[in-house]
Amino acid sequence: MKVGIIGANGYGGVELIRLLQNHPFAEIELLVSHSTSGTNIKELYPHLSTIIEMDLAQINVNQIADSVDVVFFSTPPGVSLELLPQFSEKGVLCIDLSGDHRLKDPEVYSQWYQKEPASSNLLNQTVYGLSEANKEKIKDSNLIANPGCYPTAALLGILPAIKEDWVKSNSIIIDGKTGVSGAGRKNSLATHFSEVNENVKAYKLGTHQHIPEIEQLIESFSGNTENITFSAHLVPMTRGIMCTIYADLKEPMSSETVTALYQSFYEHHPFVRVRETADLPKTKEVYGSNYCDIGIHCDERTNRLTIVSVIDNLVKGASGQAIQNMNLLYGWDETTGLTGAPIYP
Amino acid sequence: MKVGIIGANGYGGVELIRLLQNHPFAEIELLVSHSTSGTNIKELYPHLSTIIEMDLAQINVNQIADSVDVVFFSTPPGVSLELLPQFSEKGVLCIDLSGDHRLKDPEVYSQWYQKEPASSNLLNQTVYGLSEANKEKIKDSNLIANPGCYPTAALLGILPAIKEDWVKSNSIIIDGKTGVSGAGRKNSLATHFSEVNENVKAYKLGTHQHIPEIEQLIESFSGNTENITFSAHLVPMTRGIMCTIYADLKEPMSSETVTALYQSFYEHHPFVRVRETADLPKTKEVYGSNYCDIGIHCDERTNRLTIVSVIDNLVKGASGQAIQNMNLLYGWDETTGLTGAPIYP
Amino acid sequence: MKVGIIGANGYGGVELIRLLQNHPFAEIELLVSHSTSGTNIKELYPHLSTIIEMDLAQINVNQIADSVDVVFFSTPPGVSLELLPQFSEKGVLCIDLSGDHRLKDPEVYSQWYQKEPASSNLLNQTVYGLSEANKEKIKDSNLIANPGCYPTAALLGILPAIKEDWVKSNSIIIDGKTGVSGAGRKNSLATHFSEVNENVKAYKLGTHQHIPEIEQLIESFSGNTENITFSAHLVPMTRGIMCTIYADLKEPMSSETVTALYQSFYEHHPFVRVRETADLPKTKEVYGSNYCDIGIHCDERTNRLTIVSVIDNLVKGASGQAIQNMNLLYGWDETTGLTGAPIYP
Amino acid sequence: MKVGIIGANGYGGVELIRLLQNHPFAEIELLVSHSTSGTNIKELYPHLSTIIEMDLAQINVNQIADSVDVVFFSTPPGVSLELLPQFSEKGVLCIDLSGDHRLKDPEVYSQWYQKEPASSNLLNQTVYGLSEANKEKIKDSNLIANPGCYPTAALLGILPAIKEDWVKSNSIIIDGKTGVSGAGRKNSLATHFSEVNENVKAYKLGTHQHIPEIEQLIESFSGNTENITFSAHLVPMTRGIMCTIYADLKEPMSSETVTALYQSFYEHHPFVRVRETADLPKTKEVYGSNYCDIGIHCDERTNRLTIVSVIDNLVKGASGQAIQNMNLLYGWDETTGLTGAPIYP
Repeated sequence: MKVGIIGANGYGGVELIRLLQNHPFAEIELLVSHSTSGTNIKELYPHLSTIIEMDLAQINVNQIADSVDVVFFSTPPGVSLELLPQFSEKGVLCIDLSGDHRLKDPEVYSQWYQKEPASSNLLNQTVYGLSEANKEKIKDSNLIANPGCYPTAALLGILPAIKEDWVKSNSIIIDGKTGVSGAGRKNSLATHFSEVNENVKAYKLGTHQHIPEIEQLIESFSGNTENITFSAHLVPMTRGIMCTIYADLKEPMSSETVTALYQSFYEHHPFVRVRETADLPKTKEVYGSNYCDIGIHCDERTNRLTIVSVIDNLVKGASGQAIQNMNLLYGWDETTGLTGAPIYP
Repeated sequence: MKVGIIGANGYGGVELIRLLQNHPFAEIELLVSHSTSGTNIKELYPHLSTIIEMDLAQINVNQIADSVDVVFFSTPPGVSLELLPQFSEKGVLCIDLSGDHRLKDPEVYSQWYQKEPASSNLLNQTVYGLSEANKEKIKDSNLIANPGCYPTAALLGILPAIKEDWVKSNSIIIDGKTGVSGAGRKNSLATHFSEVNENVKAYKLGTHQHIPEIEQLIESFSGNTENITFSAHLVPMTRGIMCTIYADLKEPMSSETVTALYQSFYEHHPFVRVRETADLPKTKEVYGSNYCDIGIHCDERTNRLTIVSVIDNLVKGASGQAIQNMNLLYGWDETTGLTGAPIYP
Repeated sequence: MKVGIIGANGYGGVELIRLLQNHPFAEIELLVSHSTSGTNIKELYPHLSTIIEMDLAQINVNQIADSVDVVFFSTPPGVSLELLPQFSEKGVLCIDLSGDHRLKDPEVYSQWYQKEPASSNLLNQTVYGLSEANKEKIKDSNLIANPGCYPTAALLGILPAIKEDWVKSNSIIIDGKTGVSGAGRKNSLATHFSEVNENVKAYKLGTHQHIPEIEQLIESFSGNTENITFSAHLVPMTRGIMCTIYADLKEPMSSETVTALYQSFYEHHPFVRVRETADLPKTKEVYGSNYCDIGIHCDERTNRLTIVSVIDNLVKGASGQAIQNMNLLYGWDETTGLTGAPIYP
Repeated sequence: MKVGIIGANGYGGVELIRLLQNHPFAEIELLVSHSTSGTNIKELYPHLSTIIEMDLAQINVNQIADSVDVVFFSTPPGVSLELLPQFSEKGVLCIDLSGDHRLKDPEVYSQWYQKEPASSNLLNQTVYGLSEANKEKIKDSNLIANPGCYPTAALLGILPAIKEDWVKSNSIIIDGKTGVSGAGRKNSLATHFSEVNENVKAYKLGTHQHIPEIEQLIESFSGNTENITFSAHLVPMTRGIMCTIYADLKEPMSSETVTALYQSFYEHHPFVRVRETADLPKTKEVYGSNYCDIGIHCDERTNRLTIVSVIDNLVKGASGQAIQNMNLLYGWDETTGLTGAPIYP
C-alpha cells in the first residue's frame, strides 16, 4: 500500500514518516511540500539521514493520484479545502490532519475559521476520525477528518461520562495544557525559546477553533447542544497535551466506581489506558506513543468529577491516530505499526 | 531593624536573603537552620559568595529573641507550630511562611495537615497576611500567617468577583499550574529533573492543603461557606504559578466591564496589575518580582468568567509577600525593597 | 532467545525493556531488582502499563541461569563485580552495562573506581563492546563490557583520526556535555530540577572514571600511551551527549578531506552517520535512536581538528549498544530491533 | 544624568532598562527603536507595565543629543557603525554594546563581519570596555566598545594566566556554551523552542566573530600574536554562558597555587569571584547578576590548566557591564546599581 504525505516538511509530516517507516504494510511513495519542494527531506531534518532521503515534490494531483493509495494532509488551514476534493474525486483515500473538514456545519466552520467551508457534499462523506468513538464508520469511509490534538485528549476523557449520562453537559470545563510542537515549525515570537522557556501562558480564551469541534462531538453523543468552556495553555515542553476536565455529576459517584466504569468502557480499545483510582497520568508517560492515559477523581465535597487525560499531541493527537485510522480503514489490526512503547525518561 | 530567618537553608529562606539584602531598613542578623547548622550559607549556595557569608546557627530561642526584632519562619510543616509560640511570648514579631497558622479552625487544620493544631489563642491573634486583602489588620498585628503560593494567586484573582458578588460561589474551579521550586530543595523523585522535564502532571486532587485555606478566605469575604474545586499541576519550570479560575456569573457581564472593575478594585495596590481586556499575563512576566498580574475573560456563550492570575511563587507567593507584610507592619511604604522589575527573558 | 535484566528498575533497564519489546528474536523473561523486588514494574513506570506488567524479582542466580540465555547488568558500580562471575560460570552470556569490567588493568580500576577489581581471568575473557571497533571479537565473546556513554561518543568521534595517525595523541582534549538521565533515577541535589534547569555545570574535572576507559582504547588503537584531558558538563536536558573533541593535526588537512575519510571509515557501520562538511550534528537528531552522528571541522588557522560527536546516552551510550552487541554475538544483523528513527522534535 | 537607549526593543535594551531602573544616578530619558517606534514598550514587554511605560521613539540624532548625556547602543551589527559617529561628534558619551567598534584593525573587522569598518580615527578613540582589564582607560574615555558575551567570560577566565605568562598562548582552546537569549528576540528556526529544547548544538566553528575579539585582547596582554580555537555551543536555557578554557602550562602548577594567584589577581575587582579549589561555578549561580565566577583545575597528568568561567550573558556579558563602564566613566563606584544578588533557584 502506497502513501503520499502532503505537508511533509512540518512536524506532523515528519512524525508520519517516523511512524510509517515502522509500518509493515505501508510504504512512503511521495513527500510533498509546496514551500520547500526540490529540497531533500534530510536537509530540513538531518535526523532522517540514511533513513529516508527523498526530495520533496511539488503538488501534482494527477501524478500523485496515480502513484499512491492514500494521501495524508498535514497542512496549514485552508490547504486541504482546496486540494482534497481533487484527490477524493479520483478515488484516492484521504486522511486530513488539518481542521478543514472536521466541522459538519459549514456556518460554524466559517465563524471559527474565518474561511469559506468545504462543500456540504464532501462534509457529509467525511467521517470524524476519533478512532475509539467512530471505529465502524471509519472502516467504511474514504475521507477521514483526523481530530485536533486538544479534542482527542478532551473527548477521550469525557466521552464515557457523556455517553452514560453521568454529568450535566452544561457544566463541562476543559483546561488544556500543551507542549510547543503543536504550533508547528513556523517561526514566531510565540514559539521563541526565550519567550516560552520558564513560562506558562493562556491563549485564545473563548476563541480557540477546537471549541466547536469538541461541542460537535459531545452533541453527537449526548444529543444535547451545550456550550463548553475550554482554555488553552502553553507550557515549556515540546510534546504532550494534558486536558483537565471538570464536570458536575448528576448523582454522587465515587472515584472507584467511575474508574471501573471507564475501564470497562475502554476495555477493547488498546490505546486508551484508564489508570487505577488515585493514579493520575503524566504527559511524559505517553511520550512518542499512541496511548491516551486517563485518570479519574470524584470529589465528594463538591460532587464534581475531574478527569485527567494525556496524549502525545503529535502521535495520538495527530499522526499516530491518522495511521490508526488508516489501519481501521484497511481492515488491519488498529495497532499495526503503532506498538512502540513510550520513550521514558 | 534586625531580622532572623529560621529555615534559611531552603529556597524560601534564600529568597528572603536576596530580597532583604536590597532592603534599606532591614538587616539580616541571623540565619538559622536545624539540619545544616555550622555550615556557611555560601557552601550551600555559592551564588551568595561575597554577598552574605554567614554561618547557619542552631535554634536558640533566647539568644535569637534578644538579637532580632522580626523572625521569619521558612520552615517545613510542624516546625513553627512548636517554635513560634516561644518567640511570640517574648514579644518578637513573627512572620510564618509555613502553613501552620493559616487556618483559623483547629479542626480543619487537623483534618488537612494531619497534625495537632496551634492553640486557639495564638490562632486568634494571627492575621492572614494576604497583603492586599488585610492591609489594615496587618499593620496592627504581631503574628502574621503568610499565605500559601497557590492561595495568593487564586485569591487575588477571585477576590474582586467574590466581594462584589458577581459569581456563584459554589461554581468556583481553580486550575493551578506551578513551577518546581514550590516543592523546596528536598530531594525526591517528584523533583528529579528527568522525571519533571518534558512533563506535566496533576497531583493531590481533592487533598491539597491549600483548599481549606482558599475556602476560608472566600468565606470571610462572601459570608458564604462553599466548597471549591482546586487542582494542582506541576509544569517543567523552576519559578511561577498560574491559576486559571472559572466561575459562573450571576448576571451577564462583558470582559471590558469586569476588567475595568478589577482595575478600579486594585487601583491603590501597586503589586497587582490588571491587564487590559484580551491581554493575558504569563508567569515569566512576573519572574523574580512581587507582582501579581491578572487577566480577565468573560465568555458570553457560557456566561462564565475566566480569570488568569500569575505570580512568582517564591516572591509574591512567599518571601516577597512576607517582606511586604513586614513593611506594612512597620508602617513603611509597602513596596520598600521590592521594586525590582521582573527579570525578562 | 530469553533475556534477563538485572537492575531493571533503573533508566538503563527501562530502556532495555523499551528496545527489547520491539526485538523480533529476544524475549524478556525476567526483570530483577534488589531494591524494589516484589513490585510490578508498571508501578514504578506507569508508562509500561499494558506493555509489560511483570513483578521485579529478587536475585536468584541458579533460577535465573536456568531460565535465560543472556543477562544484561544495568547496575550501579560494584554489583556486577560480585554477580557476573556466578552467571559466567554457569555459561550464561553476560553483557555488563556498568563500568566494572571495562578496564583491563586491575590497578587502574582500583585507582579510578576505589574498589577491588574483577579477577584478571575474567577481565581477560571480557571484550570491550564498542560495536564498531570490536565487531569481530564481540562475535566470539561470552562476556561483554558495554562502553560508558561518554567513551562511546568520544571514541567513535576520535577513532578514525587515531587509527589513521593524523593527530598528535598527546593533544587530545574532549569536552563532554550530557543530559541528566545519565545520572540515573537516584534522588540527589545534583539531579534536582530546580538546581539543574537553566544551568550548566562542569563536574569531576580530572577525576571522571571515563578518562582511563577512553585512554585504554586510544592506546589499543594507536599503540601509544597518552593522557587525555576530558571535562564532563551537565546541561539541562534529559537525554543526549555531545563530545566536542580537539586535537592537533600532524599535517594540515582540510575539512573536506577529513570528512571524506571519516565517511569511508564508517561506510559499513550503519549506526555511525558522518555528516557532510559544515553540517554539525545536534543531540536531538539522534534522540531515542542508536545512531552516533559526527561532524568535522579543520581550522587552518590553528591546524587543529575539531570533531563533534553526538549520541543518545541511554541508547547508543547504553542499552541500544548493548542490544547491538547481543545481535553481533548471536550472528543477527546488528540493526535488528534497533531501526527506529530518532524522535523529532 | 540622562540616558538614551537605542535598540530598546531587544533583550539587551530591556535588560538595560531593568538595571537602570535601580540605578540611583541615572535616569532613562529616551527609548529608541527603528523597527517598533511609536509603540509603548509595555506592549512589547508587558512585564514592564507600571514600571516604565514609554513610547519607543524614532532616531533623531539632534533631539537625542540635546536631551541625553549617554547613549547606549544595543543594536544589530552595522547600526552603530552609521549612527555612533553622529552622536560622538556632538559630544555625547557612547557605549556600544554591538561589535561594530571592538576590533582595532579595520581589515580584521571587514574579514569577520563582512562589512565596511568604522573610521580609524574613531577606532583609535574607542576603549574596549572589559571593565576589569581596562579600568583606567575607561575612566578617561568617551567612546566605549562593550565586549561581546563570550569574550567577557573567556577573557576574564584566561587573563591572569596570560598576563602572568603561565601558559603557552598557542595552546588555548575555549569551549563556550551559551543560553538562547544571546541570539536576541528575532524569530528564527535556530531559536524555535521545539528545535532548541532537549538539544545541544555546536555552531559557527572557526567562523565566530568573537574569535578575533578574544585574540586581540590576548595579544594586547601577552604581546604575542596567536590564533586560538573557539567553539560556540547552544544549550537549552535562556540565560548564562560558560567558557571552559584549556591551556598548556609552561611549568607544572597545582590547582591550589593557580587558584590563590587568581584570587589575588582579582582581589580588588568586586564582580569577579574566584572559587576555592575544586569548587566549580555553575551558570545559574550568577543568573541575573553582574558577577563572573571562575573555577580552576590543574591536571598533573597532562600538565594542562582548565578554567571554568561563567557569566549571565545579558548582564556581565552585555548590559550590566555597560552600566559598570558608565559608572567608571562617571567616577562612581563601579558597583552602583549593580549589587543585586543572583536569583536562585
